[in-house]
Amino acid sequence: MQLPAPVSVKWIADFVQGNILGDAAQQATGINEIHQVKNGDISFVDHEKYYKAALQSAATVILINQAFDPPPGKTLILVEDPFRAYNQLVRHFHPFSFPEKLHADDVQIGEGTRIAPQVFIGEHVQIGKNCLIYPHVTIYDHCIIGDNVIIHAGTVIGADAFYYKKRTTPEWKYEKMISCGRVVIEDDVEIGAHCTIDKGVSGDTVIGKGTKIDNLVHIGHDTRIGRACLIAAQVGIAGTVIIEDHVTLWGQVGISKDLTIGREAVVLAQSGVPSSLKGGQTYFGYPAEEARYKRREIAWVKRIPEIWEKVKHL
Amino acid sequence: MQLPAPVSVKWIADFVQGNILGDAAQQATGINEIHQVKNGDISFVDHEKYYKAALQSAATVILINQAFDPPPGKTLILVEDPFRAYNQLVRHFHPFSFPEKLHADDVQIGEGTRIAPQVFIGEHVQIGKNCLIYPHVTIYDHCIIGDNVIIHAGTVIGADAFYYKKRTTPEWKYEKMISCGRVVIEDDVEIGAHCTIDKGVSGDTVIGKGTKIDNLVHIGHDTRIGRACLIAAQVGIAGTVIIEDHVTLWGQVGISKDLTIGREAVVLAQSGVPSSLKGGQTYFGYPAEEARYKRREIAWVKRIPEIWEKVKHL
Amino acid sequence: MQLPAPVSVKWIADFVQGNILGDAAQQATGINEIHQVKNGDISFVDHEKYYKAALQSAATVILINQAFDPPPGKTLILVEDPFRAYNQLVRHFHPFSFPEKLHADDVQIGEGTRIAPQVFIGEHVQIGKNCLIYPHVTIYDHCIIGDNVIIHAGTVIGADAFYYKKRTTPEWKYEKMISCGRVVIEDDVEIGAHCTIDKGVSGDTVIGKGTKIDNLVHIGHDTRIGRACLIAAQVGIAGTVIIEDHVTLWGQVGISKDLTIGREAVVLAQSGVPSSLKGGQTYFGYPAEEARYKRREIAWVKRIPEIWEKVKHL
Repeated sequence: MQLPAPVSVKWIADFVQGNILGDAAQQATGINEIHQVKNGDISFVDHEKYYKAALQSAATVILINQAFDPPPGKTLILVEDPFRAYNQLVRHFHPFSFPEKLHADDVQIGEGTRIAPQVFIGEHVQIGKNCLIYPHVTIYDHCIIGDNVIIHAGTVIGADAFYYKKRTTPEWKYEKMISCGRVVIEDDVEIGAHCTIDKGVSGDTVIGKGTKIDNLVHIGHDTRIGRACLIAAQVGIAGTVIIEDHVTLWGQVGISKDLTIGREAVVLAQSGVPSSLKGGQTYFGYPAEEARYKRREIAWVKRIPEIWEKVKHL
Repeated sequence: MQLPAPVSVKWIADFVQGNILGDAAQQATGINEIHQVKNGDISFVDHEKYYKAALQSAATVILINQAFDPPPGKTLILVEDPFRAYNQLVRHFHPFSFPEKLHADDVQIGEGTRIAPQVFIGEHVQIGKNCLIYPHVTIYDHCIIGDNVIIHAGTVIGADAFYYKKRTTPEWKYEKMISCGRVVIEDDVEIGAHCTIDKGVSGDTVIGKGTKIDNLVHIGHDTRIGRACLIAAQVGIAGTVIIEDHVTLWGQVGISKDLTIGREAVVLAQSGVPSSLKGGQTYFGYPAEEARYKRREIAWVKRIPEIWEKVKHL
Repeated sequence: MQLPAPVSVKWIADFVQGNILGDAAQQATGINEIHQVKNGDISFVDHEKYYKAALQSAATVILINQAFDPPPGKTLILVEDPFRAYNQLVRHFHPFSFPEKLHADDVQIGEGTRIAPQVFIGEHVQIGKNCLIYPHVTIYDHCIIGDNVIIHAGTVIGADAFYYKKRTTPEWKYEKMISCGRVVIEDDVEIGAHCTIDKGVSGDTVIGKGTKIDNLVHIGHDTRIGRACLIAAQVGIAGTVIIEDHVTLWGQVGISKDLTIGREAVVLAQSGVPSSLKGGQTYFGYPAEEARYKRREIAWVKRIPEIWEKVKHL
């Protein structure tokens, strides 16, 4: 999320009641969690496992719960609970808006776009030209939809990220990360019925130009789907995934978080993908592997009884 | 389901046109199918495979299609079709109510709760304080929602159980079991978009305090999810499952009916769980096993060609 | 799709600006894509891989991009882009209708049928007697629903087929095939919450009498489900599948396109079915095989370490 105007480290530290380590004159221009962080951003880190990555990231201002020498060009703000401080800043700059009104403010709808009855459109949504939005679609606030986009009945665009901080003291609980990102749907996309495309935690979830999505597909926060991809029914894609252009995912495929599926890759039905896949190949199985190897493996498994016959008397 | 007041066996037998075996002065205080049955309840059994279990259950009044000596403290009511007699009683004490009116009767909504436009709330629903209910959510009759609950767009709470009696004469057909249970959602739960949480057949489907559920998750009738569980997108949980506290189910996991997942168990993405799992371990695969064994198994399968090289000349 | 009246090949060729090869006096009575084609139909073919099948099909008029001698009784119409010419004809005879009005024209609703608030019903829909249609259901235009049908909240009946023509020049894109088919739901069907049942591309998607479907199930275009089938939650069935009578599909099963599942087959949870299955057997796994073989295979895999012990010193 970009800030409306640069904000000084001094102001931020006062707001979250933290102590500045480093240059108090530094200015922040955005807020982003660590996966999306850019130069100028405020980010946070609260676990020793990630201190190094955070200190080496592009972030300019880091909310942190342990003192370090600030790296060149970065300012640290020492706070007791960086997660809460981060959420507090997000809420300040992205005030909570609940869809209480049927006709939201500041919605832009392009020429030739047709909106069916019983569609809900949140605040600050932009929809391009010649789109078809079928009944019972929900579009949460701040989402951006291009031209010639078709969205079938019931699809939900822009619900909150499934992203929580686990606390185990004083009791086991999950604390919600506040989502301030958007969904951006480019031109010529078609989305089937009852899909769910979550907004970014702090950046954008993007569906690239010309991509076609079947029914009941889930796409997680901050995931970026390339151009002209084909995503069949009931596929699930976790958060912060990159799907490059012209990828085909067949029905019920599952893609784990934080990975990349290369250009023109094809993943066959029901496959599970726990790690990145190179482009240009066909994959299947769990864990998904190149189809030609996986098919051989299936054939080998069927030969175990034959092997047993050879060795049982040894 | 509790009855509004105790009902005599005499009245019940007259109502379902059955014959009393045992104490006609006995009183029933509830109606429950065999998985949920408590002392005081009316239940039913119609297959020899289950006679023994039913006669040994906690039920006080048993609708049955074969004569037995009633066990101590139980009364049997002999009827031709116990399933239909049971459904007939359920319908009498839980009259069918169809959501024909936009503003249902006897709905209680707590202070600070915000309900978006295009939400449907059925009769006798209770919603606690400071909840957020997003557009196109449907809450069927009699469901109970606690405080600080967030329900994202399109989610359906309390549809009927997927529970039918199969008949094969005179023709193959499935006869609907009438659901009279509820969904109970405890405090601090968040539920994503387009989830479906079915009501109990006769008891409650429960989502425990602080549990967080992602999009497109299905939870079957009479299933009980513990506290502070994490359930990722597209997970499917069948009926009458017990998920203990602090369980994590990753994306697209499937859990079969009538089993228990122990406290703090973690089930990795796409796993299929056909039998109960002990707590405190990580599982994956189909059928789901402890991850460390399953990973070894995957490695062994890849070594079959090597084994073949050793034995092919034998 | 049947045409409102027979149309001459001469008119069709003029409309799509093509050249007639064969009998110009021939008449067409329907339009269907190659999977659904009947005598009297216009169909199309645009790839050498399918020329032979198209020329041997039941079609009477074939839009084609290469000249052949027309087989007896068939007329070819030579056009540059048969896919576009076909879509152009479909759109002419099945004009696009977007659900812009809450109360659509020419809707027939039978006696005793109850429609909840916030249901959307498209043009020319027919609903039989004594049905229950719960909130937020969407029924697209031209769908036919029988008597005693129950449709739970949010289900979408009749969205467009997921069917595109891939073009790779001048750029990679997917061009939408226009769906002109319907969904036909026979008597006594119950459909859970948030299912998606797509309309046929040119024929009917059919749910047979007495079939019961759980929540979040996807059924693709032109698929035909038999009578008294049981389909559990989150099952996905691709397009042009035939499911015969009394089939049971347990949770999260996936069925690939263009295949047949035989009468009384049972497919266990999470199985993936890439090819047709004979009736009367129980199947599981991916690829789904008879359960008794698959169980033995799982047992054999667990014996690989034992085999290794026997051969490791060879």
